[in-house]
Amino acid sequence: MIKIYLDQAAATLPLPEVVEEMIPYLREKFGNPSSLHEVGQVARKAVEEARARVAGLIKADPEEIFFTSGGTESNNFALKSMAFAHQDKGKHIVTSVIEHHSIIHSAKALEKLGFEVTYLPVDKFGFVDPRAVKGALREGETILVSIMHANNEVGTIEPIAEIGRVIKEYNENLASKSGRRIYFHTDAVSTVGTIPVDVKELGVDLLSLAACQFYGPKGAGALFVKKGVRIIPFLHGGIQEGGRRAGTENVAGIVGLGKAAEIVSREMGSWNERITGLRDRLINGLQEKIDHLYLNGHPTKRLPGNVNVCVEFIEGESMLLYLGMEGIAVASGSSCTSHALKASHVLVALGVDPALAQGSLLFSLGKDNSEEDIDCVLEEMPPIVNRLRQMSPLYKKP
Amino acid sequence: MIKIYLDQAAATLPLPEVVEEMIPYLREKFGNPSSLHEVGQVARKAVEEARARVAGLIKADPEEIFFTSGGTESNNFALKSMAFAHQDKGKHIVTSVIEHHSIIHSAKALEKLGFEVTYLPVDKFGFVDPRAVKGALREGETILVSIMHANNEVGTIEPIAEIGRVIKEYNENLASKSGRRIYFHTDAVSTVGTIPVDVKELGVDLLSLAACQFYGPKGAGALFVKKGVRIIPFLHGGIQEGGRRAGTENVAGIVGLGKAAEIVSREMGSWNERITGLRDRLINGLQEKIDHLYLNGHPTKRLPGNVNVCVEFIEGESMLLYLGMEGIAVASGSSCTSHALKASHVLVALGVDPALAQGSLLFSLGKDNSEEDIDCVLEEMPPIVNRLRQMSPLYKKP
Repeated sequence: MIKIYLDQAAATLPLPEVVEEMIPYLREKFGNPSSLHEVGQVARKAVEEARARVAGLIKADPEEIFFTSGGTESNNFALKSMAFAHQDKGKHIVTSVIEHHSIIHSAKALEKLGFEVTYLPVDKFGFVDPRAVKGALREGETILVSIMHANNEVGTIEPIAEIGRVIKEYNENLASKSGRRIYFHTDAVSTVGTIPVDVKELGVDLLSLAACQFYGPKGAGALFVKKGVRIIPFLHGGIQEGGRRAGTENVAGIVGLGKAAEIVSREMGSWNERITGLRDRLINGLQEKIDHLYLNGHPTKRLPGNVNVCVEFIEGESMLLYLGMEGIAVASGSSCTSHALKASHVLVALGVDPALAQGSLLFSLGKDNSEEDIDCVLEEMPPIVNRLRQMSPLYKKP
Repeated sequence: MIKIYLDQAAATLPLPEVVEEMIPYLREKFGNPSSLHEVGQVARKAVEEARARVAGLIKADPEEIFFTSGGTESNNFALKSMAFAHQDKGKHIVTSVIEHHSIIHSAKALEKLGFEVTYLPVDKFGFVDPRAVKGALREGETILVSIMHANNEVGTIEPIAEIGRVIKEYNENLASKSGRRIYFHTDAVSTVGTIPVDVKELGVDLLSLAACQFYGPKGAGALFVKKGVRIIPFLHGGIQEGGRRAGTENVAGIVGLGKAAEIVSREMGSWNERITGLRDRLINGLQEKIDHLYLNGHPTKRLPGNVNVCVEFIEGESMLLYLGMEGIAVASGSSCTSHALKASHVLVALGVDPALAQGSLLFSLGKDNSEEDIDCVLEEMPPIVNRLRQMSPLYKKP
């Protein structure tokens, strides 16, 4: 029985107010927002209210928000639809090696269709260098840059505003010569609802977000598309979402996304102060109590709730199972690839030795976690590590 | 205030048992099915139970069911992913002119990428001729046929099993010569959960379905892909759904889809007997009471709850508004294009005069409708039609 849940990156417990607000849209307010009669219009009104709330969370205009089924769809939408919409102007895309697989595998799919993709490297903390972005841009070829706002595994927060400025400058030069421009997308699934996000400050044209990352439901996300940016649908069909995203709206999910956005806008600041404290308590405690343990990502420029470590000589999955038996839920990396049994592509990109990367453990903390949770982990984990190391042929007993 | 809801094709009221079963997965059972710990495994178990229930509804195997965000995604997935997966074998697709826009616009998008699409015509009832399908197949070029099981607007049930046999025969011939084959997809969003559907009897390789059509939630659907059929992901990313559909699962939605599938499997027969009676009562009553009123689609080979009529000399939208004021919710056509203000592509394809097509009205009936509902419509509608006709410059007063 899990007593301590430290896998908030995989799923957050929706806020009670979020679920309360969703339920009527599964019951009496079940209408289709496209229906012209009253039953439909009740649903339409709820969808538009949610759109305004999501826009508020990222300082966008409501008409710049397009609802999707989640972060993965938003990322596929951004990459593929921008590629197809602008392929007449060039077929080159710039991204990084540590993006989520919904970006990397979309990019690989585009490569098969004749696009060219540059995957920028990162430094040992996981930072993408804005100068490297600049260096990768090709006049008359590059149409899109997509760099994540924060890495979902190691928590590193990327210099998106700086990259935004690099692209803006480049575009100003380019426009004076050719009238063309390069678009900038950020996968902000790990940051929206978690840390303050302002699309204007970041200088992005497109941004992906997902409700399940900030105490909202699964199956609801959005893509921000700046006014004036031409994009074609990824899901073709009806004329929902201004003709940009077809399909009957998941009204209850969208309502939940909106409510979560409204609450986190208000509460995020005080939650984060506490979560950051817990994060640092966990990092310091682990480093104190367990030798041959290495923190992945940057010590401070990281998500408030992210603690990603590698424990040498043992496997992440074994630790995960033993911690589970003690009632502690953690992950060994991204939940989207939890069954892949491969070393994380992010850790490998940071230069972590593949053998060491097998011993990775991802604790992700949220507003519901307490100091007691952290202290319990700090008590339970050292003996587990010891026991596993005793069984490991790689570990030289001291 | 709507008292009589006859727009079941746009949205059905989820069954109370469906919502009851969903709610825990928005609350305490909030885990990510990809998480290896107990919180995740509870969600995983629910997703797999839903998969078995959906498979049961269409007589498929659970491993042939891939969850999506709804009918539109399933149709995009089927068409685009099959096209890209098999383009080395040919770039020709056969579909019909009366498909849902999620098929037609996906096909148009593929045309822009170099695919060739044949849009088969239909007869005055909306039937696709299996011989026309056979005639459209091109050896070494055709890779996919996609014909809907029933039309969502006029309710005509297509001869899918016959078309399946035509394609099977063709493939047997083709295989003996070249080892190649043509795949067969049906958009069964309007039929699954509404009338019995058996993928083996239909002879299809792929089939789309959506929960919101049969008293389940919005935002949850599935694509059936027959074992052995090669398909690539439409949503790229993580390795959910056996690597075929990335993205954190909408667990609550999937649970609702599964529960709805389980209930309709059991109840559909008795519900349909009653719904068909109501449908015919409405058709007969309208034809008796209103002159210059024409039934669209086939008189009997139609969905149990579908009544689509054209009322000459007036506009569907005006009728819809007046009926709304009397507390009756209906549609003028597909909800996915309700704001398009164009004559329905389906009615035009059936040969309905475009002016007459503007006067279309779609009543869609479900298990919650009663004889009183029908009688109320039959009482309220004739005076509304009269009033509107008196205002119409096209109507010659008798």
